[in-house]
Amino acid sequence: MNLTVLIHCPDQKGIISTVTNFLHQKGGNVVYLDQHVDKPAGVFFMRLEADFENGYTKALFKQEFESQIAANYQMKWQAFLRKEKPRMAIFVSKYNHCLYDLLSRYHSGELEADIPFILSNHTDLKYIADQFSIPFYHVPISKANRKEAEQEHLRLLEEYKVDFVVLARYMQIVSSTVIDVYPNKIINIHHSFLPAFAGAKPYHAAFERGVKIIGATSHYVTEELDAGPIIEQDVAPVSHTHSIKDFIAKGRDLEKIVLSRAVKLHVQHKTVVYNNKTVIFT
Amino acid sequence: MNLTVLIHCPDQKGIISTVTNFLHQKGGNVVYLDQHVDKPAGVFFMRLEADFENGYTKALFKQEFESQIAANYQMKWQAFLRKEKPRMAIFVSKYNHCLYDLLSRYHSGELEADIPFILSNHTDLKYIADQFSIPFYHVPISKANRKEAEQEHLRLLEEYKVDFVVLARYMQIVSSTVIDVYPNKIINIHHSFLPAFAGAKPYHAAFERGVKIIGATSHYVTEELDAGPIIEQDVAPVSHTHSIKDFIAKGRDLEKIVLSRAVKLHVQHKTVVYNNKTVIFT
Amino acid sequence: MNLTVLIHCPDQKGIISTVTNFLHQKGGNVVYLDQHVDKPAGVFFMRLEADFENGYTKALFKQEFESQIAANYQMKWQAFLRKEKPRMAIFVSKYNHCLYDLLSRYHSGELEADIPFILSNHTDLKYIADQFSIPFYHVPISKANRKEAEQEHLRLLEEYKVDFVVLARYMQIVSSTVIDVYPNKIINIHHSFLPAFAGAKPYHAAFERGVKIIGATSHYVTEELDAGPIIEQDVAPVSHTHSIKDFIAKGRDLEKIVLSRAVKLHVQHKTVVYNNKTVIFT
Amino acid sequence: MNLTVLIHCPDQKGIISTVTNFLHQKGGNVVYLDQHVDKPAGVFFMRLEADFENGYTKALFKQEFESQIAANYQMKWQAFLRKEKPRMAIFVSKYNHCLYDLLSRYHSGELEADIPFILSNHTDLKYIADQFSIPFYHVPISKANRKEAEQEHLRLLEEYKVDFVVLARYMQIVSSTVIDVYPNKIINIHHSFLPAFAGAKPYHAAFERGVKIIGATSHYVTEELDAGPIIEQDVAPVSHTHSIKDFIAKGRDLEKIVLSRAVKLHVQHKTVVYNNKTVIFT
Repeated sequence: MNLTVLIHCPDQKGIISTVTNFLHQKGGNVVYLDQHVDKPAGVFFMRLEADFENGYTKALFKQEFESQIAANYQMKWQAFLRKEKPRMAIFVSKYNHCLYDLLSRYHSGELEADIPFILSNHTDLKYIADQFSIPFYHVPISKANRKEAEQEHLRLLEEYKVDFVVLARYMQIVSSTVIDVYPNKIINIHHSFLPAFAGAKPYHAAFERGVKIIGATSHYVTEELDAGPIIEQDVAPVSHTHSIKDFIAKGRDLEKIVLSRAVKLHVQHKTVVYNNKTVIFT
Repeated sequence: MNLTVLIHCPDQKGIISTVTNFLHQKGGNVVYLDQHVDKPAGVFFMRLEADFENGYTKALFKQEFESQIAANYQMKWQAFLRKEKPRMAIFVSKYNHCLYDLLSRYHSGELEADIPFILSNHTDLKYIADQFSIPFYHVPISKANRKEAEQEHLRLLEEYKVDFVVLARYMQIVSSTVIDVYPNKIINIHHSFLPAFAGAKPYHAAFERGVKIIGATSHYVTEELDAGPIIEQDVAPVSHTHSIKDFIAKGRDLEKIVLSRAVKLHVQHKTVVYNNKTVIFT
Repeated sequence: MNLTVLIHCPDQKGIISTVTNFLHQKGGNVVYLDQHVDKPAGVFFMRLEADFENGYTKALFKQEFESQIAANYQMKWQAFLRKEKPRMAIFVSKYNHCLYDLLSRYHSGELEADIPFILSNHTDLKYIADQFSIPFYHVPISKANRKEAEQEHLRLLEEYKVDFVVLARYMQIVSSTVIDVYPNKIINIHHSFLPAFAGAKPYHAAFERGVKIIGATSHYVTEELDAGPIIEQDVAPVSHTHSIKDFIAKGRDLEKIVLSRAVKLHVQHKTVVYNNKTVIFT
Repeated sequence: MNLTVLIHCPDQKGIISTVTNFLHQKGGNVVYLDQHVDKPAGVFFMRLEADFENGYTKALFKQEFESQIAANYQMKWQAFLRKEKPRMAIFVSKYNHCLYDLLSRYHSGELEADIPFILSNHTDLKYIADQFSIPFYHVPISKANRKEAEQEHLRLLEEYKVDFVVLARYMQIVSSTVIDVYPNKIINIHHSFLPAFAGAKPYHAAFERGVKIIGATSHYVTEELDAGPIIEQDVAPVSHTHSIKDFIAKGRDLEKIVLSRAVKLHVQHKTVVYNNKTVIFT
């Protein structure tokens, strides 16, 4: 098996050799290791991949690693098998560019995830789900039915055993009802260079302010709007010659690429969240 | 003579042909023309350069253009002779990177301005002024003496017939006392991607927020802190591996390049300010 | 009518005022004007847009402008009505990313062109043409049938009154038989930062050389392979951690964006070719 | 002591745990570890930093690591003490921008190296060496005296115990006489995006070709001109509005930043050369 392990814990001596030793003893060959120490915070982070050809299992690893290593170091850790593709639900509203971009990467094999369903508060993009033969759920949402709608979201996420959710320009606020079940597992794309222009209509605000560069930001969703841990950002130059419509068109290219990069990092288990920030292993 | 003219006025038909016709009749050859219409605001902008080989003068142009053209179109306009180098004062505190960068471009002829003096509230950088044989004035500033210090600033700016001021990491707030005398003529460099992280310690705030890109912004100084018209911005990628110290080091490279670009645009009369935004002709 | 005019001619005095005057006299309002002088080459370039509300026609403009203005200045010029969408054929082979990107921009109205047909030497991408309800032609090509295939290309281009051709990762060389009929009207995307890595397998060559940045280049097709006038380029960082497969995946994002930008510039009549280079009006 | 170790060797199982174990047994705490496997080439690379507080010495490490570990794995490896600043000679000709940039970083403590001397084939930049109180050697070079000049270079490099050489726009070819003594230890800045425009006058060639992006490349010097392992590259956009003079001015900013980044990576022992490519640890 190929096992990816993500670890973070209070920094102390000997963690790397202890962990690599453990894996070596269990017959694992470490084929990738990257680590990071946040010195001001005193936290150690590590991502590693190990190959086992001796029949050692993930279940055994979880049990032995926890009792023999992790407990001693107060580690928070996760382990993933490469062959297990994470299951990702996509929520959309009416814009199709991010959805098309994700699905074409999924279709070409670049995005190694399963997509059990697409959900929307509108029916506009059902045709794309149909094009790619992915189940589509229409869950209208309004002030009146928000609670029921969220229960329906949770029901579908559970039914389909979804691992994480991508908000591909889903123009609704996701409340703590859902976030609490999927902490650091809901990825949003915001169409500004956060923390500038949080909230609604960021391109209009950027145009008004007269910025010379616009951006897009992908982040994990937390309760505070547009304030969660940033996974990926990118920017593009603009000038006085660009109208708001031009900002929006240029922004579409940013949004889809930034979101896809963030989703890929998550799918590859390269992100760790700590103190409302991310460590991104490369 | 080579004359550069910057114009803005309410948009209407026929402005370009009227202006180019006028110049043609006066014997001018238009060697550069760029224009822009801000359609939502209904404002027309134009920058042009014309060569005259017939002895026509700037003084005559100013008189005739105002009476024959500008008044009819409610134009706000400025005219500059290429051979007249603008006179630029530099204000600094203790950081040397922006100062060095400006002076080395000045020294190599890349920055076609005169630098009558450098002013600081500290004496730390006097040695650089000495290296380049530029007069240096030390004007300490504190709560107690702020008014007197600003009068001294104004006195020096007047005495040396300064056209515009560059705040090359001058860590003091410039008040309306000075701004009102130099409207859209004081250029600041702020070490963030505005409007994100306005105010003090932007690199610390950026680090805290966990952004993946940092920036620098050069803008004209207005009364509201870090809220003036943006001239130029640029960014650089960062990651969790960068400490605040790394942010600051990377930021230095951004600051000096963004400030120098903004100063060059101003020196070449390529900027027009309107509605707290800039039109930048290229 | 809204008329866009592209002009280039030997540089001399008074061209701008002469042209804008002419348009003014015919009742046109110049709403956009940009010009450029290549001083070493002594060539003047201009792009302008004029609105006419008096019934003046393109046919009349063409006749009067040629006889009254263009002939005197040895101008090469073109005029386009905004309402006339250029007709663009797309040639593809087996890669779908550029085709999808162009079609989604076309579909959303961002790309103001008509697409009368898609042509391929394979049938792999027929399904995409079907998705968007665009006629698809399969014209296999081999050493043996190249001449016949090219005749079929020309026949289709003529039948559908195609204005320009986009090679969206069409993996075949287009010969002078077709180029001569469409000079500076065939747009290619090459998956390298030209002139580096012209020819086959540029990502492999870039990987082999150990570059730290990869690129993509869109250019007009000329007889010499990958040596035509460059319209647009962009780059992305790479490192030793990227495999050739990673180069190719990153490159796909570059290719589709660079090609789409180039196609948009062409569709908006913002490109002029001169001396195997382009002037790109913005 | 703080020890940085750079290793590369044929890839095999257990290297990471073997090395980290060894360090742990000697009382070292691994504070940084990054590794890379070039799978097609079958080569393992690792960079690590370890703190020792038990009096263990570099001399002892070198002996024990070689005999107990490195020999078994056919490792090529280097070890550096953090407190030992590498000694760097700078060669220049007449351009001052790269020299100024390096020296100002050195002066501010950003570049943790010693600079025992600056050498030039001209005397134009002696004044800068004087400003920073660094010994300056004028070694004229011509066809006639090339051999003698190179012997003088080698004599100075040896006398001053120089670890590596930076060619900061040194406009002379360095021959194998010197390269063989400093393999992968001479850093050059080439003013193009290599491999495009190798050789003389790259900005002229880039202008002629009509590229839309220019670049700069820093690389280790090998016998083949501009063909050595690339350390760092960066680019800047250009357009038809830029003259060759503009290319050169924009290029200066690229050159100095790309060279400084490359020098910092070398100084921090973050580069490994293999197969004429670099692995850059970050």
